[in-house]
Amino acid sequence: MRLVSFRLYEQERLGIEWEGRFVDANAACRAMLAKQGDSDPVRLADALLPADAVAFLKGGARTFEQARAVLDFVEESSPEERTQFVYDVSAVKRLAPVPHPGKIVCVGRNYHEHVSEMKRDVPTIPVIFAKLPNTVCGDGDEVPFPRVSDQLDYEAELAVVIGRQGRYIPESEALRYVAGYTAFNDITVRDWQHRTPQWLQGKSFDKSAPMGPVLVTADEIGDPHTLDIKLRLNEELRQSDNTSRLIFNIPFLISFVSQVMTLEPGDIIATGTPGGVGVAMDPKGFMKVGDVVKVEIEKIGVLTNHIVEG
Amino acid sequence: MRLVSFRLYEQERLGIEWEGRFVDANAACRAMLAKQGDSDPVRLADALLPADAVAFLKGGARTFEQARAVLDFVEESSPEERTQFVYDVSAVKRLAPVPHPGKIVCVGRNYHEHVSEMKRDVPTIPVIFAKLPNTVCGDGDEVPFPRVSDQLDYEAELAVVIGRQGRYIPESEALRYVAGYTAFNDITVRDWQHRTPQWLQGKSFDKSAPMGPVLVTADEIGDPHTLDIKLRLNEELRQSDNTSRLIFNIPFLISFVSQVMTLEPGDIIATGTPGGVGVAMDPKGFMKVGDVVKVEIEKIGVLTNHIVEG
Repeated sequence: MRLVSFRLYEQERLGIEWEGRFVDANAACRAMLAKQGDSDPVRLADALLPADAVAFLKGGARTFEQARAVLDFVEESSPEERTQFVYDVSAVKRLAPVPHPGKIVCVGRNYHEHVSEMKRDVPTIPVIFAKLPNTVCGDGDEVPFPRVSDQLDYEAELAVVIGRQGRYIPESEALRYVAGYTAFNDITVRDWQHRTPQWLQGKSFDKSAPMGPVLVTADEIGDPHTLDIKLRLNEELRQSDNTSRLIFNIPFLISFVSQVMTLEPGDIIATGTPGGVGVAMDPKGFMKVGDVVKVEIEKIGVLTNHIVEG
Repeated sequence: MRLVSFRLYEQERLGIEWEGRFVDANAACRAMLAKQGDSDPVRLADALLPADAVAFLKGGARTFEQARAVLDFVEESSPEERTQFVYDVSAVKRLAPVPHPGKIVCVGRNYHEHVSEMKRDVPTIPVIFAKLPNTVCGDGDEVPFPRVSDQLDYEAELAVVIGRQGRYIPESEALRYVAGYTAFNDITVRDWQHRTPQWLQGKSFDKSAPMGPVLVTADEIGDPHTLDIKLRLNEELRQSDNTSRLIFNIPFLISFVSQVMTLEPGDIIATGTPGGVGVAMDPKGFMKVGDVVKVEIEKIGVLTNHIVEG
C-alpha cells in the first residue's frame, strides 16, 4: 500500500494511492459504512480509519485490514460515488506522509563513501541526532534558504517509519516494527552544524526535513537493503548508491535506538546519507535559491523540493 | 499564575493552583458559562480554556484573561459547586506542566562552574541539543534506571516555556515570547552521551526530562536571572547556583534558537546546568536505584523524582 497525507479544506487527511489518485481513507470508510447501514458511520470511521497518519499507524494490522476492505469498496463504487472520497493529486496539497511524527532520529556517518569524503573514521557505534518537528515538510514544498548562512546542503536518505510501539527490540524482531519506508532529505546548514560540537543547530532549520512523496508499506518494499538511492540537484546527479551499503543496517538501527527510547508509531529513523554531499565537493556544491533538489529511491519514487528565499 | 497539568479519569487536564488545590480550568469555565446561561458551555469552554496545555498557551493573553475570570468565579462559588472543578493535589496524578511540548531544546555548557568541572572551554556560541518527547515526565514520577549503563547523572536547570510563535526574535523582544518557567532535570546517561560525538543517545532515555512541579507565569517570576537553583540527591546538596550566572542569558538564548527554528507555544528551552554534576565528582557521584533527586528553583518550587529499576 502507498500512503500519503494531504490537506483538503484546511484538514489533514490520510490518503491511499489508487490508480494514480488519492483515496481519502477515512471518507471512503464513512461512505462504505453508511452504505452498509451503520447508524453512526462518521464516528465509527474515525475510530477504524483515522484521517491522522499517526493514529492510522497506531491501529496496526487492524487498520490495514480495514484499509484493504475500503479499497475493495472504492473499486466497486461508481464514478459518482467516488467524487466523495477520491481526489486528483493536483486537487489537493500533498504533505509529508506522516505530517506530525513524534520523533525524527537521524543516523550520521552510515555509508562508507560519506564517511571518507567527510574525513571521519568508520563508526563502531551509530551516531544519532535529532531533527525537530518544525523541520517536517512534504514533496513539492518550498524550503527557505536560511538568512544566517550560505551553506545549505542536501543529504538523500532512506527513512524508516515505525509502525508499533517498542523498547529493547531484538534485531531479529526489528523489521516487524516497521510500517514502511519513505524518501528523506536531511537538509543541513553546514557551518551551523559544525561551529559547535552538537549538530542540532545545523540540522533543525524550518522545513529542513522534506519527506515523501509516499510511505510505501514494508510488504511492498520487501528487503529494504536493496534500494538504489540517488540525489539530483537541478538534474545533476550528486549522490548515487544503494541501501545494501549501509554500515549499520535497519534491524540493527531499530534495535539500537530502542535501547535508548521507546519507539512509537509514526516515529521516523533516517538511515544516513551516501557520498556526494555538497560540502565535500571541490569547489563546494551547496544549494542556492532557485535550485530544485530531488531524492529518488527505488520502489518509493521522487521527492522534489524547491529552494526559495528565506 | 501557577499552572499544572494532571490526569483525571485517563484525561489530561490543565489546572491552576488555587489555595493549595488544583482548579480544572476547562471544567470551571464550563460551570461558569452554564451559570451565565450559555447554550453550549462545553463547546465554548473547550475553545476558551482548553484542557490541553499547548492549546491553552496558544490562546495567549485571551486565555489568561479568561483564566482570571474563571478564578474569580471559583472564589465566589460554594464548596458544593467547587467539587465539580476543584481537586485536592493528592486526588489526581500530576503530569509535566506541558505534557506534550513540541520541542525540547537544551543548552549545554551555560554556567562557568559546569564548564570548568567538565574541562571544556567557555563557549562563544550556545551549544544546543535536543531531548525527544519520550523523555517528558512530571513531579513525583519514577525515572527508570537504564538497563544498558550504570552512569545515570542529574542536571538541575531552569526551563523556559514559550508562549507565542516566533522566528528571528530580537533579544530586546524575547521575554515577550515567554509564557513562564519551570524546573527541569536534564537526566543524562554519561557514557552513552560521550561514546559518539553526538549527545542525543545519552540525553533521550525514557523519562529523562522531568519537569515541574508547576509552570509559573512570567509575570510572577519577574527577572528570571535572579533565581537560586539547587539540586539535592537524597538530601545531599549537589548543585547550588543562581541563574544570574548563566553564560548566555534567556533573551539571548530565545533569540539564538529562533534564528534556526520557529518557536511555538509550549516549546521548552532548558537553559543549562550549574556545577556539581555526578560525573565531575571524585569519586563519581552517579544516581542509583532507590535515590530521590530534587531540583529546587526559587519562586517555582521543588521537582522530585525517584530512580527505580529499569
